Amino acid sequence: MALSDLASVHRNEEGIAAVLGILKQRFGERLQTGQAMREQHGHTTTYIPNQAPDGVVWPESTAEVQEIVRACAEHRVPVIAFGVGTSLEGHVNAPGGGVSVDTSRMNRIVAVNAEDLDCTVEPGVTREDLNHYLRDTGLFFPIDPGANATLGGMAATRASGTNAVRYGTMRENVLSLTAVMASGEVVTTGKRAKKSAAGYDLTRLLIGSEGTLGVITALTLKLQGIPQAISGGVCPFPSLDAACQAVIATIQMGIPVARIELVNALQMRAMKAYSRLDYPESPCLFVEFHGSEASVAEQAETFGMIAEEQGGGPFLWTSVAEERAKLWKARHDAYWASLTLRPGAKGLSTDVCVPISRLAECVTETEADIAEMGLIAPIVGHAGDGNFHVLALMDPEDPKEIALVEKFVARLNERAIRMDGTCTGEHGIGQGKAGFLRKELGHGVDVMRTIKQALDPLDIMNPGKILPAQT
Amino acid sequence: MALSDLASVHRNEEGIAAVLGILKQRFGERLQTGQAMREQHGHTTTYIPNQAPDGVVWPESTAEVQEIVRACAEHRVPVIAFGVGTSLEGHVNAPGGGVSVDTSRMNRIVAVNAEDLDCTVEPGVTREDLNHYLRDTGLFFPIDPGANATLGGMAATRASGTNAVRYGTMRENVLSLTAVMASGEVVTTGKRAKKSAAGYDLTRLLIGSEGTLGVITALTLKLQGIPQAISGGVCPFPSLDAACQAVIATIQMGIPVARIELVNALQMRAMKAYSRLDYPESPCLFVEFHGSEASVAEQAETFGMIAEEQGGGPFLWTSVAEERAKLWKARHDAYWASLTLRPGAKGLSTDVCVPISRLAECVTETEADIAEMGLIAPIVGHAGDGNFHVLALMDPEDPKEIALVEKFVARLNERAIRMDGTCTGEHGIGQGKAGFLRKELGHGVDVMRTIKQALDPLDIMNPGKILPAQT
Repeated sequence: MALSDLASVHRNEEGIAAVLGILKQRFGERLQTGQAMREQHGHTTTYIPNQAPDGVVWPESTAEVQEIVRACAEHRVPVIAFGVGTSLEGHVNAPGGGVSVDTSRMNRIVAVNAEDLDCTVEPGVTREDLNHYLRDTGLFFPIDPGANATLGGMAATRASGTNAVRYGTMRENVLSLTAVMASGEVVTTGKRAKKSAAGYDLTRLLIGSEGTLGVITALTLKLQGIPQAISGGVCPFPSLDAACQAVIATIQMGIPVARIELVNALQMRAMKAYSRLDYPESPCLFVEFHGSEASVAEQAETFGMIAEEQGGGPFLWTSVAEERAKLWKARHDAYWASLTLRPGAKGLSTDVCVPISRLAECVTETEADIAEMGLIAPIVGHAGDGNFHVLALMDPEDPKEIALVEKFVARLNERAIRMDGTCTGEHGIGQGKAGFLRKELGHGVDVMRTIKQALDPLDIMNPGKILPAQT
Repeated sequence: MALSDLASVHRNEEGIAAVLGILKQRFGERLQTGQAMREQHGHTTTYIPNQAPDGVVWPESTAEVQEIVRACAEHRVPVIAFGVGTSLEGHVNAPGGGVSVDTSRMNRIVAVNAEDLDCTVEPGVTREDLNHYLRDTGLFFPIDPGANATLGGMAATRASGTNAVRYGTMRENVLSLTAVMASGEVVTTGKRAKKSAAGYDLTRLLIGSEGTLGVITALTLKLQGIPQAISGGVCPFPSLDAACQAVIATIQMGIPVARIELVNALQMRAMKAYSRLDYPESPCLFVEFHGSEASVAEQAETFGMIAEEQGGGPFLWTSVAEERAKLWKARHDAYWASLTLRPGAKGLSTDVCVPISRLAECVTETEADIAEMGLIAPIVGHAGDGNFHVLALMDPEDPKEIALVEKFVARLNERAIRMDGTCTGEHGIGQGKAGFLRKELGHGVDVMRTIKQALDPLDIMNPGKILPAQT
């Protein structure tokens, strides 16, 4: 998709002025219209230009969100939900202006039901806040997209991350949502039962809807028991293919691996230098196992045998927390390590996901494409899910580089779709990938548009996102 | 809900006659209109009267389903998808007549991708057929609702069963669906990637939609590796509460239990007699563990300690296949065993699901209600999910008994909802539970209706199901 293809959204100047007046009166200092604040709320971590909202409002309750949405609906003004702004595809941009609804003051942990392994939180609670709060209960919330995102934002974008291979994504870890819909009505999508066959799955409809159907104002989440023991380590492989074959064998054998991360040779080079790791510059798997003492030892030993069969190794593993922490810090610092490959450049992070049988092929073709296009772009992947990231290092002020990276991303998306995969495994569509949705899902896009139009006939909920511009 | 509250659906006689003519010409002997065949396709396993369709048609491809749906849309005639008819809440009834689309000839296994642990099947494949086919691959499809249902029907009703506690429900085990929508368009909801953040979750929207949005014509399913070892056993407890506390501790400790089934004292009495089991007539848990040899032994031993702490036991477990088979045959024969408690009666099976912290309370209150109402109704439950079934033994020809059981079920549904649970964990809404959906989800019902009206404006897809009659 070229930047020129971004869906344009009409600016309703009169309505915006009216809504800002109403919100100023109602929310006082909790409405801000200063340029810096507005730009901060429209920031994007991609090459899409900043499209700032006209005002930012900080509600403190579902009822206040309802008031905001009703005022915006009456005057046909866009409502853009905002967590902490770590989304990657222009999700919080305001192409038609409007009101950014910052949920940071809705940060209460409403209830923890330890016996049921669930909790209810407001959308502005971050995953680190929640896990800090849960520390003494023996429970944790497993989804870890890297950034310390809000749980509302993570649900809205169907986030996942390194341990989705074991614990699933936000799709599998939300029991119920409360949301203010475009109509201004409040909907709670489910009860606390672990499963239900009662009607359409509104929970899953809202998860991944990126604020285009409603603003999430509460979430009931599944929790997990903190594992008794954790083991992990790093294993080098002679080739991407060998590493991916080891991943496939691990999953097929039913080893309940908690993380299995692929790092390509270029990324290892950066990490070795940045994090002082003593591993070869070849593709590596970073793995982690959760369970009882006996189980994590057995899992690690079985994985070691699988790796050896693929010519990998040595696989050094440990259940000592400090040693594991060093490895995972290196993995989590991959972004910062990458930046050292081209000092002064910024990184554009993109993601695709393919069936794991195609992962080696897809990464290999992508590496060749990177070389052919003259880019510097290391690769890390949540290999157990077939999901990988490319971090393209670029000068965001240089239009030629922007065009080159855009072209690279387009080819990557199309490659993944051609291999029966998706143009985004976890970042979402936002503005950046809207041009690829029809290539991936065909007539499904029309079904999505029908749902959007039925539930948000005025197109006020985060307009210009997910659905491609109509042609 | 009283039977008199069933949503009535207008019969479009002229349209029905026109469609039957078209389908006869197009499908010949693959359209049947004989009374016995029609009644077989409108049968219900509840107290709701049989409402037969006007004709039954056997398509053999997505394109043929598309032809049928287009003809029905043109003449505004209901389309009712039919698997093998094991649904329990009147899902396949035809309150406004119309055409039953029997998918039994769409029974091909299209592809098995062993490396990706997935397969693609037509909707008429049953779960036993699929697992039989997979036998030599080392893989299996885990969802087991008891009946040998079709996979299309299982997806349509969001089925689950005994091992959902470990493997999830149909919601978590379908990667993608192909469906003919009410418009006659064919939609494929996803690719084969294990996760995706690309747009609205149409897969989950169709799962559990009970044929009211589209007819499923293909499914891509996740598969699991057959566990290296399985252990299992039965453990008696002094009380329901003790059994439920053991379930909670098992889940909290992160034991990846594959099945954990609660059987109440009355059900044990029936099973002892029917299956010649040597256990006390007290609440029991039937458990099963999947994993490596070492892991299943460790799981069973840890469970035994948990049970002992709750005053349960002795917990006798085995990893010998024949011994396990005997126990699970007894569990699966619970329905037949129950019928011996009142010879000549029929069983009405209903289900609810509550947070597991409320399971003991909900079952205990329900037992008291059964006693107070003078019913004979044993209870079995998928305790790890807080989901349980009551089999009310009744004379389906006696209107007084029907009224009594209806009242009992209504009270059960309301009790579950009051305990933050759902009126159905796995059977679905169909006709039988439509009256409880608003009590459970409030304004969510209006969101569902908006979606239904947008995607099926002529109300031809399985009308009269899920959504309650409008008042």
